[in-house]
Amino acid sequence: MQIKDLGEFGVIDLLTRMVVGQRSGPGNAGAFSFNLTVDNGDDTAAWSPSTSGTINELFTTDTMVEGVHFTRETTPWHDLGWKSLASNISDVASMGGRPAYALITLGLPPQTEVSDLESLYQGMLEIGNEYGLAIVGGDMVRSPVVFITVALTGVMHGQPMVRTAARPGDKVAVTGHLGSSGGGLENPAEDGAAADYLRVSHRRPRPAVAAGQTLAEFEIATAMDVSDGLADDLAKLCRASGVSGRIFSDRLPVHPFLSSRFPDDCVELALGGGEDYVLLFTGRPAKINHLVSRLPAGAAVVGEIIAGEPGRVTVVDAGGQELPARNRGWDHFDSAQD
Amino acid sequence: MQIKDLGEFGVIDLLTRMVVGQRSGPGNAGAFSFNLTVDNGDDTAAWSPSTSGTINELFTTDTMVEGVHFTRETTPWHDLGWKSLASNISDVASMGGRPAYALITLGLPPQTEVSDLESLYQGMLEIGNEYGLAIVGGDMVRSPVVFITVALTGVMHGQPMVRTAARPGDKVAVTGHLGSSGGGLENPAEDGAAADYLRVSHRRPRPAVAAGQTLAEFEIATAMDVSDGLADDLAKLCRASGVSGRIFSDRLPVHPFLSSRFPDDCVELALGGGEDYVLLFTGRPAKINHLVSRLPAGAAVVGEIIAGEPGRVTVVDAGGQELPARNRGWDHFDSAQD
Repeated sequence: MQIKDLGEFGVIDLLTRMVVGQRSGPGNAGAFSFNLTVDNGDDTAAWSPSTSGTINELFTTDTMVEGVHFTRETTPWHDLGWKSLASNISDVASMGGRPAYALITLGLPPQTEVSDLESLYQGMLEIGNEYGLAIVGGDMVRSPVVFITVALTGVMHGQPMVRTAARPGDKVAVTGHLGSSGGGLENPAEDGAAADYLRVSHRRPRPAVAAGQTLAEFEIATAMDVSDGLADDLAKLCRASGVSGRIFSDRLPVHPFLSSRFPDDCVELALGGGEDYVLLFTGRPAKINHLVSRLPAGAAVVGEIIAGEPGRVTVVDAGGQELPARNRGWDHFDSAQD
Repeated sequence: MQIKDLGEFGVIDLLTRMVVGQRSGPGNAGAFSFNLTVDNGDDTAAWSPSTSGTINELFTTDTMVEGVHFTRETTPWHDLGWKSLASNISDVASMGGRPAYALITLGLPPQTEVSDLESLYQGMLEIGNEYGLAIVGGDMVRSPVVFITVALTGVMHGQPMVRTAARPGDKVAVTGHLGSSGGGLENPAEDGAAADYLRVSHRRPRPAVAAGQTLAEFEIATAMDVSDGLADDLAKLCRASGVSGRIFSDRLPVHPFLSSRFPDDCVELALGGGEDYVLLFTGRPAKINHLVSRLPAGAAVVGEIIAGEPGRVTVVDAGGQELPARNRGWDHFDSAQD
């Protein structure tokens, strides 16, 4: 059997079972002198270096591969640098933390232009400066295809927010506009304010670090970042929590520039566009309603958690009518998506 | 200009200058609420989470790319898993620490066999168990070429050993046999005890975590691990410390199995074979002589630090005669090494 037959989730499940099975191994006590608070399967791992547990350190990694996650034609090197760190910062944000130290691994063909590499790092340094993180090392290797792997640590006070704590009756909310990045991918060369907004949303996403810290301060238990699209990411969260979810298509926070430019497709872009890097979070209705009013522009209640098949997410319109299911997901090893 | 023209060191220098230049950026204060004790350019980065500075956390990453660092023909998946973690554990060992948490990034073609992936993880879990580390997450992406990136954290008491503290008059020593791994690469299919020893040295290297902790306890200031061969790695250490070095070719700790199997080439294998994963360390002569006697079999004084051109390393025989310089180094972007 090949991994494309098993699918991304099947492969991850298999490896997670192997890794967790290892934990009972006799030689393995040393790793747990730290207090591991979040294990495999969430946006980051987390542990508490002190016994009091009030500070958590976070640890995550994310990779971009040429021809899979980007092409040099549609993503300038400068933006590639920004985005490769942004996706990792967003994972740290989703736990409620802020980024600290990054290691950068570059796989590069020997023919790579030095000026392109400088642009790549310039993009990394810009977002690094803006979010207060430091690049402290990495690795550089020859590779026939460009890839960029970032490993990032973070730090937070309080309890990390996880994917596994959603309960039936929770409201589902997001911290910002949905679909803008997907809209920016569609028409990279257009002029005008709307096109500029959409292009910047796609090329320079701003991870929601401040919002994540606010959510953690208010003791929100469940959050993740929206990187693959709301419908797909809520399904992952529901799967991890053992619940179902429902999205209200008429309540999606869509930016006016997106709805004016894509009047027919903006709902679908908001549901499945991907790379939004807003946070998705759940909690009791009174707390969520209170919090949404305190978060920056665009925050909104977009759905609810219900009992049901783990990971099943439906989308309903204003009249309660279920929208037809579409494959908005993304399986890295599914060759049909090539 | 392309990166192959600038060379690996040139590229690293360029990017390090950019990264260090960033540190004065106005938005960047947040990263330094931790106390960064070792920055870019060493085997790992390090910081102290407490203000007392008695505990340091370590952070490193290392990548293996198919066709560059291994081929599926010569490295079974199981061994690939072991080695991909071993190189990172060795970096932690070289600072004086022990490994804690790992993130595994896999770039895989969709046609990868699930059983091969299981073998890869089995190899990782075996060395992970033996060294008391836990895999806590990672990323899996589609890629036309197999690559494995490990990001590893570690922890240590006391001051991390660095590459930058060697001084003229220091003795240079290593913690174990040299060249065995290189010998194991040469003849993978042979039978017999010598071949078995060499093959295991190549396929299942054992990072010197215990030795590194001993060195740190004795307040050795300068160490790194030998991954690219003694001559090349000592040159890197000398370059970082702004000194020259001299290796005594008659004092290299060569295992009897290596010298019996490769009587003519064992010195060259010891100097440039690579993937030894022993530790190289320097210090005042009395301290080094004392320490060598306390370390496991194979530890030996192999050279000395002298004033001179930074990074220049010569090899002399028992009569003090300089051996001809050979290119034992490894530049990832030099196409002559394809």
